[in-house]
Amino acid sequence: MAGSPSRAAGRRLQLPLLCLFLQGATAVLFAVFVRYNHKTDAALWHRGNHSNADNEFYFRYPSFQDVHAMVFVGFGFLMVFLQRYGFSSVGFTFLLAAFALQWSTLVQGFLHSFHSGHIHVGVESMINADFCAGAVLISLGAVLGKTGPAQLLLMALLEVVLFGINEFVLLHLLGVRDAGGSMTIHTFGAYFGLVLSRVLYRPQLEKSKHRQGSVYHSDLFAMIGTIFLWIFWPSFNSALTALGAGQHRTALNTYYSLAASTLGTFALSALVGEDGRLDMVHIQNAALAGGVVVGTSSEMMLTPFGALAAGFLAGTVSTLGYKFFTPILESKFKVQDTCGVHNLHGMPGVLGALLGVLVAGLATHEAYGDGLESVFPLIAEGQRSATSQAMLQLFGLFVTLMFASVGGGLGGLLLKLPFLDSPPDSQCYEDQVHWQVPGEHEDEAQRPLRVEEADTQA
Amino acid sequence: MAGSPSRAAGRRLQLPLLCLFLQGATAVLFAVFVRYNHKTDAALWHRGNHSNADNEFYFRYPSFQDVHAMVFVGFGFLMVFLQRYGFSSVGFTFLLAAFALQWSTLVQGFLHSFHSGHIHVGVESMINADFCAGAVLISLGAVLGKTGPAQLLLMALLEVVLFGINEFVLLHLLGVRDAGGSMTIHTFGAYFGLVLSRVLYRPQLEKSKHRQGSVYHSDLFAMIGTIFLWIFWPSFNSALTALGAGQHRTALNTYYSLAASTLGTFALSALVGEDGRLDMVHIQNAALAGGVVVGTSSEMMLTPFGALAAGFLAGTVSTLGYKFFTPILESKFKVQDTCGVHNLHGMPGVLGALLGVLVAGLATHEAYGDGLESVFPLIAEGQRSATSQAMLQLFGLFVTLMFASVGGGLGGLLLKLPFLDSPPDSQCYEDQVHWQVPGEHEDEAQRPLRVEEADTQA
Amino acid sequence: MAGSPSRAAGRRLQLPLLCLFLQGATAVLFAVFVRYNHKTDAALWHRGNHSNADNEFYFRYPSFQDVHAMVFVGFGFLMVFLQRYGFSSVGFTFLLAAFALQWSTLVQGFLHSFHSGHIHVGVESMINADFCAGAVLISLGAVLGKTGPAQLLLMALLEVVLFGINEFVLLHLLGVRDAGGSMTIHTFGAYFGLVLSRVLYRPQLEKSKHRQGSVYHSDLFAMIGTIFLWIFWPSFNSALTALGAGQHRTALNTYYSLAASTLGTFALSALVGEDGRLDMVHIQNAALAGGVVVGTSSEMMLTPFGALAAGFLAGTVSTLGYKFFTPILESKFKVQDTCGVHNLHGMPGVLGALLGVLVAGLATHEAYGDGLESVFPLIAEGQRSATSQAMLQLFGLFVTLMFASVGGGLGGLLLKLPFLDSPPDSQCYEDQVHWQVPGEHEDEAQRPLRVEEADTQA
Repeated sequence: MAGSPSRAAGRRLQLPLLCLFLQGATAVLFAVFVRYNHKTDAALWHRGNHSNADNEFYFRYPSFQDVHAMVFVGFGFLMVFLQRYGFSSVGFTFLLAAFALQWSTLVQGFLHSFHSGHIHVGVESMINADFCAGAVLISLGAVLGKTGPAQLLLMALLEVVLFGINEFVLLHLLGVRDAGGSMTIHTFGAYFGLVLSRVLYRPQLEKSKHRQGSVYHSDLFAMIGTIFLWIFWPSFNSALTALGAGQHRTALNTYYSLAASTLGTFALSALVGEDGRLDMVHIQNAALAGGVVVGTSSEMMLTPFGALAAGFLAGTVSTLGYKFFTPILESKFKVQDTCGVHNLHGMPGVLGALLGVLVAGLATHEAYGDGLESVFPLIAEGQRSATSQAMLQLFGLFVTLMFASVGGGLGGLLLKLPFLDSPPDSQCYEDQVHWQVPGEHEDEAQRPLRVEEADTQA
Repeated sequence: MAGSPSRAAGRRLQLPLLCLFLQGATAVLFAVFVRYNHKTDAALWHRGNHSNADNEFYFRYPSFQDVHAMVFVGFGFLMVFLQRYGFSSVGFTFLLAAFALQWSTLVQGFLHSFHSGHIHVGVESMINADFCAGAVLISLGAVLGKTGPAQLLLMALLEVVLFGINEFVLLHLLGVRDAGGSMTIHTFGAYFGLVLSRVLYRPQLEKSKHRQGSVYHSDLFAMIGTIFLWIFWPSFNSALTALGAGQHRTALNTYYSLAASTLGTFALSALVGEDGRLDMVHIQNAALAGGVVVGTSSEMMLTPFGALAAGFLAGTVSTLGYKFFTPILESKFKVQDTCGVHNLHGMPGVLGALLGVLVAGLATHEAYGDGLESVFPLIAEGQRSATSQAMLQLFGLFVTLMFASVGGGLGGLLLKLPFLDSPPDSQCYEDQVHWQVPGEHEDEAQRPLRVEEADTQA
Repeated sequence: MAGSPSRAAGRRLQLPLLCLFLQGATAVLFAVFVRYNHKTDAALWHRGNHSNADNEFYFRYPSFQDVHAMVFVGFGFLMVFLQRYGFSSVGFTFLLAAFALQWSTLVQGFLHSFHSGHIHVGVESMINADFCAGAVLISLGAVLGKTGPAQLLLMALLEVVLFGINEFVLLHLLGVRDAGGSMTIHTFGAYFGLVLSRVLYRPQLEKSKHRQGSVYHSDLFAMIGTIFLWIFWPSFNSALTALGAGQHRTALNTYYSLAASTLGTFALSALVGEDGRLDMVHIQNAALAGGVVVGTSSEMMLTPFGALAAGFLAGTVSTLGYKFFTPILESKFKVQDTCGVHNLHGMPGVLGALLGVLVAGLATHEAYGDGLESVFPLIAEGQRSATSQAMLQLFGLFVTLMFASVGGGLGGLLLKLPFLDSPPDSQCYEDQVHWQVPGEHEDEAQRPLRVEEADTQA
């Protein structure tokens, strides 16, 4: 019953009711469970005899702010490249991340820091919550333009839980190291989204093909996202690593890796481009693969050379993925990957996990000295060898791929619930489905963009 | 005498002469009064036996930079939503804030830190100066598009003085707490601007109605402003709170409040939108109300739940304000509020002040422990009870509304001085009045945008 | 042989092969020479008995991130003002800076921190590398639109080496102070680029004149660059100054200087503008001259008044330069300075060096106290007088101008090598020469912008 009043009323209510329900439930759970930790609580902090300079705030908050900018500015604007989906790209990023960070504060809190009936929060929980929001936004990249906001909120509701469990299994049960989240964030977020996109496969999506590209200005907006992600990635990978040399080394490695992935991306983009011309899609995305690929290993003694080599490899692989693998992914595997998250987060994430296996396996007491404790505590304490650490890192990748795939499948089934509002095939990548949109030029500012109402699906 | 040579010459000279005069006077006052404080002066700092790590720079400067980004990037781009007023929005923000921060360094210095004939400056005075600039930019939002740059500089000249006095009365005379400025910045800035806009009421403003909306790209530029304000607001509220747990808790509360106001805004925007569609104006503005509403209370033991509840309330009230109250404000109260500062700063500011009354009234020695000294020093020292603190907070709101209203009225009279250059009713929201403007498209780059010179008012 | 297959193939391969070669060579040199320093190495850091809070990371990294944002966001977007060269402006900034920071890590490492066969890296080397990248981007501003990416990489290859040597001569051999790089970064980068642009003079450049201006939206994008440069400049100048009061004072001085240069720029722009209208080019650029002009002196006891006066002077001189000197530079001196780097970096850089001469010459033990050691160690240790320090500062400016001019000349000859791909006179300032470009509007998204293939030069 296309466009029927009851359907319109349903659309009108799905998003607001879901927002209100989720916010209400979250608030109740916060009231019951969430408390300031001893570094944020007025009474607890002053009970100890601390110097204010020792408050973790001063060691982590600048990194948090950089991560926060990446999540909201970086991811949001990176996805603005679509010519008629800018409001949705930046707006739904905003909505999803604002929900995911609250919900993951609860989920991660229950799993990681639940003591005597309460979750204790501070700057570390803010960073962890933003990391989880980042994974949700990676998945968003795979389904962008083909899903409504209510669907996306349900995706986040499920994904945050599975993210938290996967992270718990890796970091706490397996003792895997993954400070910058090559596995827990990038691999998980990418394959969750890709499998979900597979389940939501739309054979008739070419009806919206004319809106799937960029225009000149939308590509410049997207470069805002790219550049903010690129400059702050050293803070992302180092935000939760060991204080002192640990954070310092992680930031440095990431910096080098990104620089090399940028050169690799320009080289390959020109090499495979028509007539040697560069492709903005590659520059916007593949140049960032250097941040993803050292997510696991940048806190380790990767060496500056190792960072360059890894970044270069990631940039080239990612560019080749955009050029050659994305079309196959759609034609053969029926995965319609709007932003190419397989190229930016999927493959580089898996490469990053494997690099972590390698670098962990090479860890020696000699190379790390007394710093071994802060990078590989279980090796330092003699509980496992470097080789077994490496094997567990590899197993962690496998676990992540399982959680992501099964979770993405479940997510797809959830999002296919027939009563959920979803844009018709001919209205994908179109802001007007979800937003009141002004014209593109001053003289048409009062006149809305056209929407082909006729072919709204039943 | 529309467009007469003498008038044109007057316009030509007003802005430059005023800039030169204000900058010259400021420089002279700086020469006489402003000195480095003991944390910035080479000799004074090394006289004490300090560790460099103790320099306040390391505790406050990262927050200052975030505040600085909010003032110049956030406010500037948030106001770029107008289709033909982007140069003025970001340009006049730049000019006003650059003047206001110098002038408020002097005014706040005379009031707060004038010792032995000198004002002593450092990172705290930079943050305070940027805060005052923020208040001026809030007022700018109420009169944007309807005032010339010389008028705006005069507005800033007056407003900075009144801001400083109001802040002095609240913080120093009344002992009111307002770290993030729900009262001193948001309520003051909003009502100053709104009353001023009332005095400047233009019954014929519909002549410029076609320029009052946004276009697709201008809304995306505005989202840059929104997102930068949103991500850095935790630094804004915590920039001047007590070191240690104080800054930490303030940032955390603001983070939660903003997340909840975002969900509240999306919910309400879709609920009241035509056909359930979201409105960019709401998302750009009301989602930020969560930062405003905890400006007073975020340093207190608000609890994470309290932050969520306050933020959600602010987001919904602000969205409803844009939808239902802004039209009434113009039709009944004759206040033409260009950016809806009443919805983003006015109502949420007042709510934030009232929330501060409530949370201050609930303060106990048990809840704050030894931290009570840093949040409510007068209660900790036994000079007043929590209840009287609450009463004084409420009185502070009243004082702020008085200063803002009387000040805005005076400002309006000042700006109506007949020799001041002001755009005619048919040329409001139009960059070409103030700027040399290139075309919108490449092929018209040499050709200026049209200006209807005919109806330039006498 | 215009557009011949062999030439097209050549173009296809120059950029990728050069990227691959430079990245490969850099990686090999990193493998052989670059090692973590004792603040980033796991073993070395834990060998000492350090508190993690003492790690330099916490004192320098927030400033580094601000500098990083300036280099990639600031410079990149500032140059997006050109209507059809946005992809190249932000993209080539990205490529050049990513290469320059790696290459300068090596060059600066060999010159400044080569010990026992290795270069040791950490946050200071990251800041230094970004500074050098900044100088390269300043030079880019002089030749933007008239050079291909392979040419630009060769320019960077040469410039980074000369930058390093000049910096070594000034800071290490002459004992010159130049924390924020008025000489080493701005003067060097500007005159290197200007001389290079002179050598590449194109008498027929008016064939591309219609693309040399901005359009409305490109000017707004450019303001993103301006504002990010402006807000973070205090971090740029203070990133490498002495810890404690040194960094604090440097940031404060820069903050005041920028505020005054903004008012000076608005005043002069309106004064010299047609009909009193402001010119976006002035606001985008000259308002930043306040950061350049205190690059040398902001760490000194410049006084807040001195900072205001210097900034105001720089803003006015820079604005007048754009208005009156840029046309002469092209007509008389045959220097086609695309972004006006002579006005933003050249003249203010020289002024900044001279201001440094003055302030250094006025240094007294009384004014600096025990802080003299951290600003003028050679004066504090009695090895030279303030007057001789001033003379050496002046000599440093002379040396810089020599290195920049000779280097820029060599660079010009290098870039004129006939086999290097360079856009023809009629295709300057045109993204399509280097990029696959989508249309400007949704309905032409599939259709590329036109390129006049006919007049491609032989």
